[in-house]
Amino acid sequence: MASLESLQQDLQKQNDLYNELRQKPDTEPAALEEVKKTLVELKKAVGQAQKASGDAGKEGKKKERMLLKTAKGTRDYGPAEMFCREHIERIVKNCFTTYGGACLDTPVFERKDVLTDKYGEDAKLIFDLMDQGGEQLALRYDHTVPLARYLAMTGGNNTQSKIWQVGKVYRRDNPVMSKGRMREFSQADFDISGTWDPMIPDAEIISLVCTILSKLDVGEFTIKMNNRKILDGIFAVCGVPPEKIRTISSAVDKLDKSPWAEVKKEMTEEKGLDSASADKIGEYVKLKGGPELLETLLKDSTLTSNASAKEGLGEMELLFKFLGAYGVLDKVLFDMSLARGLDYYTGIIYEAVVQESAPPAFNANAEAPSSSAPAPKKKSKKADEEEDEIDESKVGVGSIAAGGRYDGLVGSLIAASSGDPKKAAKAAIPCVGVSIGLDRIFALVWPKWQKQGKRVNETMVYVMAAGDGLLEERMKLVKELRDAGVKCDFLAKKKPKLTAQFAAGERDEVPFAVILGESEIREGYVMVKEQKWEMVNGEKVKLKSEGDEKGTKVNRVELVNWLKATSTWKEWEAFSQV
Amino acid sequence: MASLESLQQDLQKQNDLYNELRQKPDTEPAALEEVKKTLVELKKAVGQAQKASGDAGKEGKKKERMLLKTAKGTRDYGPAEMFCREHIERIVKNCFTTYGGACLDTPVFERKDVLTDKYGEDAKLIFDLMDQGGEQLALRYDHTVPLARYLAMTGGNNTQSKIWQVGKVYRRDNPVMSKGRMREFSQADFDISGTWDPMIPDAEIISLVCTILSKLDVGEFTIKMNNRKILDGIFAVCGVPPEKIRTISSAVDKLDKSPWAEVKKEMTEEKGLDSASADKIGEYVKLKGGPELLETLLKDSTLTSNASAKEGLGEMELLFKFLGAYGVLDKVLFDMSLARGLDYYTGIIYEAVVQESAPPAFNANAEAPSSSAPAPKKKSKKADEEEDEIDESKVGVGSIAAGGRYDGLVGSLIAASSGDPKKAAKAAIPCVGVSIGLDRIFALVWPKWQKQGKRVNETMVYVMAAGDGLLEERMKLVKELRDAGVKCDFLAKKKPKLTAQFAAGERDEVPFAVILGESEIREGYVMVKEQKWEMVNGEKVKLKSEGDEKGTKVNRVELVNWLKATSTWKEWEAFSQV
Repeated sequence: MASLESLQQDLQKQNDLYNELRQKPDTEPAALEEVKKTLVELKKAVGQAQKASGDAGKEGKKKERMLLKTAKGTRDYGPAEMFCREHIERIVKNCFTTYGGACLDTPVFERKDVLTDKYGEDAKLIFDLMDQGGEQLALRYDHTVPLARYLAMTGGNNTQSKIWQVGKVYRRDNPVMSKGRMREFSQADFDISGTWDPMIPDAEIISLVCTILSKLDVGEFTIKMNNRKILDGIFAVCGVPPEKIRTISSAVDKLDKSPWAEVKKEMTEEKGLDSASADKIGEYVKLKGGPELLETLLKDSTLTSNASAKEGLGEMELLFKFLGAYGVLDKVLFDMSLARGLDYYTGIIYEAVVQESAPPAFNANAEAPSSSAPAPKKKSKKADEEEDEIDESKVGVGSIAAGGRYDGLVGSLIAASSGDPKKAAKAAIPCVGVSIGLDRIFALVWPKWQKQGKRVNETMVYVMAAGDGLLEERMKLVKELRDAGVKCDFLAKKKPKLTAQFAAGERDEVPFAVILGESEIREGYVMVKEQKWEMVNGEKVKLKSEGDEKGTKVNRVELVNWLKATSTWKEWEAFSQV
Repeated sequence: MASLESLQQDLQKQNDLYNELRQKPDTEPAALEEVKKTLVELKKAVGQAQKASGDAGKEGKKKERMLLKTAKGTRDYGPAEMFCREHIERIVKNCFTTYGGACLDTPVFERKDVLTDKYGEDAKLIFDLMDQGGEQLALRYDHTVPLARYLAMTGGNNTQSKIWQVGKVYRRDNPVMSKGRMREFSQADFDISGTWDPMIPDAEIISLVCTILSKLDVGEFTIKMNNRKILDGIFAVCGVPPEKIRTISSAVDKLDKSPWAEVKKEMTEEKGLDSASADKIGEYVKLKGGPELLETLLKDSTLTSNASAKEGLGEMELLFKFLGAYGVLDKVLFDMSLARGLDYYTGIIYEAVVQESAPPAFNANAEAPSSSAPAPKKKSKKADEEEDEIDESKVGVGSIAAGGRYDGLVGSLIAASSGDPKKAAKAAIPCVGVSIGLDRIFALVWPKWQKQGKRVNETMVYVMAAGDGLLEERMKLVKELRDAGVKCDFLAKKKPKLTAQFAAGERDEVPFAVILGESEIREGYVMVKEQKWEMVNGEKVKLKSEGDEKGTKVNRVELVNWLKATSTWKEWEAFSQV
């Protein structure tokens, strides 16, 4: 039998391997399954060996080795990944400012009572901080509630604002790392607060989402839209008792993951709705379309007899008109099955999906019998046992952006703090906003991005010297270039070989090599060699320099201008400024 | 007697006022003191009223109002502040990439054992997460240990790297909000890992700090430098027993806040060092200077007889030579009293300070008797009682950047995880790095920044229309401009008055007003009015447009190019791209 120590080493290795594979979007599910199986076996073997050696009795505390890993559901993003993520974030932020947004930053944790009663069933997913004497704190679950808290605190000064926030939020959910479903994940939010003329801010947000997703390499996308007022009207005219509206709404929300038969079962068997009502709802929620669907619904006198539905339909009419002016009608789909989980929405709701968002094995439109529906199992009780990870091959990336109108949230916070619901109603600030799921977008973009090259930094020039190393001379030139805004680097060795310097520059795909020599320094010039790469059979390959192997002789005082005038420089500038 | 309810309202208001004033750097300490006094009185009054009304018996749980505030030691940064902070961050990140850095992102929380035994006495300041079944987690305390954990995990692939991280870190310390001392605060780190030729990475880091601080509006700065190897040598030749070296070193570290007499007292009375040894140390640690100090020390045969000191002095010699090549010798000060608190430093250490960093009432060079030294009181036990806040008027901003060489940290993590110290020693990755304190820099920059204007966003164009509102026409033009990369906005009203539209644009200091009318749309042009502001007596004032009050007639298809050709556009571009 293997020694405990060697088993523990094997376990650590297997654990590392599993984590590595799990984070790669291109890992075959079957291969991952194999690795996991070995991992579980090793864990058992270590447990048995510990028992045998008597370690388990003392809980092995003294000899226990630290596990070198990140916390469950979190991960590091290394330089190559961050190079891609920074690019995504730059595009998103640039769109936010192009739409007139101003930035807000709130703390990563909030007083617990601010978060309480905002997330319905999902409140159990909130990460609490330990009570170390003082306030009860919890990590933020989204950016919406902290924004509402900020608006409630600053009150009058910010009643009309366009605010964006980019940052991490936290949910103790079952992670699916390869699809960007994490316990720590990044959201980019844009919200418009204040009383404006109807549907103008709502249209701005939808247009913003279209702009952002068009600029990101996520493929074809659709923005599914619906309106809580219409949904509530449908539930009313279909005979859902008022107290069951929210719970029936959550059942409808599952239609993107489960077939109608299963949802109906939940409505009738679990939630006690009569079958006839459920069937009527079924007729409505299967409708999808554009402005023509709206026209059909406006002719439905049963529906328009309901005040809420009528108001909602009027809002959609106005919205479609505005989306026409923004030129984004082809990107939206009026989808009456969209319900959204969160309680606080009061009007329009939306969700952006791409082809690749859907779980691979499941077509949401098929009315498959419930037994064959491979919806991801949620085992939140056992969320922390590695063995109960959900099957990643059956889960899609999900929606990559989502949001809606929430006119009551700020008011409810003011009410909870002032104890005066009337005052709160007056001070209420209507809001509409969207959250962009940066990790899910990264999961879509990264596989394509990797094929474009291996850059991890923005270095444009690698300064080199032959012969004696000329260390201080290299330092001086590097400083000169950096002071002029040229991103550059050199090899931190006293007398490196020229080949080693070229290799270091090439590793980072640095486009220009600037070479110093004794005579160059004396005579005031440098040699510049542009390095080019090309895609060959999907692999980036360095091209041999054409013409003079030694490169171009450039006057040192002209070097910065020479570099900035090259097409490579300009292309890079355009890329890095989005 | 006032009702409980009205008292609670007063308390909330006073609390809001206190928080508001506390976050403003220009609040008079005396005024803040007054507000705080009233706050404490109100708290007492509410407590008494609760007792009287019988609420206190039931702990008032049901009727207790939510406090609308951020957690202690944290704060929101609103749009005006974020506009400044984003600018600071852009400069810092731009310098990082100019020096060849690649980005890393690690989770906000780590497995607790990764953070254990890294921070000496300050370990009590770590924020723990609640154990909700699963791992023991804690919020990161700095970026250095997560980086070391990342390097230990990725091992061979990243032995030689330049890595930067920008993000929030957490310490349960006593906050001094107005000076940027927070429980949640932002640090920007840059680290060079791997075995390189001596002192080259160290010089890169010092040069980087000089570049960053020169580009930020922090005023004159000095980088104080020392070397742990020299300090250890000094302690050895002064007769400090090896086991007391670290504790005597922490005493020396207090010399920037306390006079020598007090530090000596700590060494002798608290830490049991003999008086003669302390006096010898005192002679060394009062020395400050440039390369000439180094020369003096190199002639000190007592010191150079110590191997560690000799090695350290050799390193400083090389460092000074390199800093000469980087042209930053005038920014550095060899300060032998600099010791730095953290245990993990093994070589060069440094700390950047500005004039304004020092506590206003205290001159670190004066050898004042201990009774008059107004060092800030630390009452960490009571850190959560509002009343025990430390006196903000007596505290300086402190160092705005600090760091050093830590050659053993990555190896120690590998050792803890592998259980094999020999393997760990081989796998050790030497590192040198710096942390920039973004909140402290913000505290220095913000008062000056506020005088420059009130912009909160980057909007360049405000699209307006007279008469009938032309809502959809405004939307179309806005979309057109945004698609062309022009950051623009409009008033989200159907038929707003022209004056209201101008007021909205002016509130955000938007430089261009583009005005649509029926005839303009028909004939394919727009009217453009450039809005200008000027500083008058320290206040930004809008100038009346010279010449044609109606503005300039611009062909609509030429509009984007026309805007981009203006000097205002180009100035803004230069500003926003740093």
